[in-house]
Amino acid sequence: MTSVAAQHLPYDLADPYRSLSLNTATTKRWTLTEAVDGAARAGLGAVGLWRDRVDEIGAAAAAKIVADAGLRVSSLCRGGFLTEPGDGQAALDDNRRAIDDAATLATRELVMVMGGIPDRDLAGARARVEERLALLAPYAAERGVRLALEPLHPMFCADRAVISTLAQALSMAQPYPADTVGVVVDTFHLWWDPSLEEQIAHAGASGRISSYQVCDWLNPMTADPLLSRGMMGDGVIDFTTIGRWVRTAGYRGDVEVEIFNATIWSSDGHEVIETMKQRYRDLVLPSLI
Amino acid sequence: MTSVAAQHLPYDLADPYRSLSLNTATTKRWTLTEAVDGAARAGLGAVGLWRDRVDEIGAAAAAKIVADAGLRVSSLCRGGFLTEPGDGQAALDDNRRAIDDAATLATRELVMVMGGIPDRDLAGARARVEERLALLAPYAAERGVRLALEPLHPMFCADRAVISTLAQALSMAQPYPADTVGVVVDTFHLWWDPSLEEQIAHAGASGRISSYQVCDWLNPMTADPLLSRGMMGDGVIDFTTIGRWVRTAGYRGDVEVEIFNATIWSSDGHEVIETMKQRYRDLVLPSLI
Repeated sequence: MTSVAAQHLPYDLADPYRSLSLNTATTKRWTLTEAVDGAARAGLGAVGLWRDRVDEIGAAAAAKIVADAGLRVSSLCRGGFLTEPGDGQAALDDNRRAIDDAATLATRELVMVMGGIPDRDLAGARARVEERLALLAPYAAERGVRLALEPLHPMFCADRAVISTLAQALSMAQPYPADTVGVVVDTFHLWWDPSLEEQIAHAGASGRISSYQVCDWLNPMTADPLLSRGMMGDGVIDFTTIGRWVRTAGYRGDVEVEIFNATIWSSDGHEVIETMKQRYRDLVLPSLI
Repeated sequence: MTSVAAQHLPYDLADPYRSLSLNTATTKRWTLTEAVDGAARAGLGAVGLWRDRVDEIGAAAAAKIVADAGLRVSSLCRGGFLTEPGDGQAALDDNRRAIDDAATLATRELVMVMGGIPDRDLAGARARVEERLALLAPYAAERGVRLALEPLHPMFCADRAVISTLAQALSMAQPYPADTVGVVVDTFHLWWDPSLEEQIAHAGASGRISSYQVCDWLNPMTADPLLSRGMMGDGVIDFTTIGRWVRTAGYRGDVEVEIFNATIWSSDGHEVIETMKQRYRDLVLPSLI
């Protein structure tokens, strides 16, 4: 059982990449070992891990690789997909495995993508999420893992996540202690929300910001909306303003870069990391200091 | 100058299409004359007009064609696009022409799509919308036309509309009389919103529902998000639930069908209307009665 304290990083222009985390989805072609190596060589402080790459070698081996490289695991992605009708046992079992893996990886934050609507019953799908969250929260709490509810952009409500706003995620988290259920602030998913400043403040005041994830919104969008994310600076998002809100809300953790983008995926991973570092230093970090 | 009273239609399964309005964007290839003829022959009560088709013949001629066919104009689409930096005079002039046309067409409702963000300054774009709305509202009020603010799905925030939720539209409408600034409830844009029931109730209680527009959300989405709308029943939206909310909120006006969809556009217009009628009668109308 691992208990991980909340991070309180010093953001520092003299050591700018200590707070920067490479999510393995950004360098999708790399194995976990390659991603950890790439992040460590580039001087980053952390990696965010997807389960597909962890499963290839097992959580214990993955944990050792990350620790040997001197990195943190900023989050494990992902649990969730709790909206299917029926008893939900298969999904619950999978989520318990994900919680175990998060504990093994010594990360406090398990990102939860809640699932879409298997039918036309949106209220029913949301109710199932709440019921199943109640079953998982004690299991996570015992293992020192926080369920980090991620609101996804409303265009994914049908197929991926019936949680669409930070307000909704906070409302769903509210019955639980702040160190058991948190929320993810991902700029791509949330930048449009007219109540975002207020909701980030609420999330911070309740100690529930599990992760700050940055990537840009490309305009025009790409044909596959899932891949319409861009490197910071390539789209329309004002990272200075949102970063100020996140800082004011008291977040001092890793900043994760998770970009689903076919062009980035086909590029050399080391070059992607160099671009990511530059954009982070220029566009994201200053407002966090 | 035309002053048009709010509609209070009886919804009736024995006369189901009296409340149904064909938006000319649904039968995109048809001229205004063809669309009016198609709607009248199918026994619909109204048409929603796009300005491109009105401009081809002029508002006065269009008004005569609609009146001669015994139809109402449920709305004129669209004014707006008020987010550009600068003095905005060209957009304001265009909106005054749209208001004049709405009055000529004897429709109370001018649908306003507010425009996207020309830069990364979302707050600035929203502020310009508010400033310019203040300039247009008196002009509309004098002509008996209501500015019907349409929240568009958040995936259009960058390129089309910085108003993304009904709550936000209502907040922007609040300084004005209810018969001067209203809001559009479009299922495609709003179905995902966790606060939708509450916001429709607010919109109804303040007498601001300008239009109820129905079309479905296709899952998976099409490559062009703009064309990812579907005929009611072809997607994931629960029209029974949303219709009940709209009815409870007191709306008794036309129900407009506006579908941007390449397959529907390439189909025979009369067949599209027949499908639309059947889906309306089966999926939409019952919950409004």
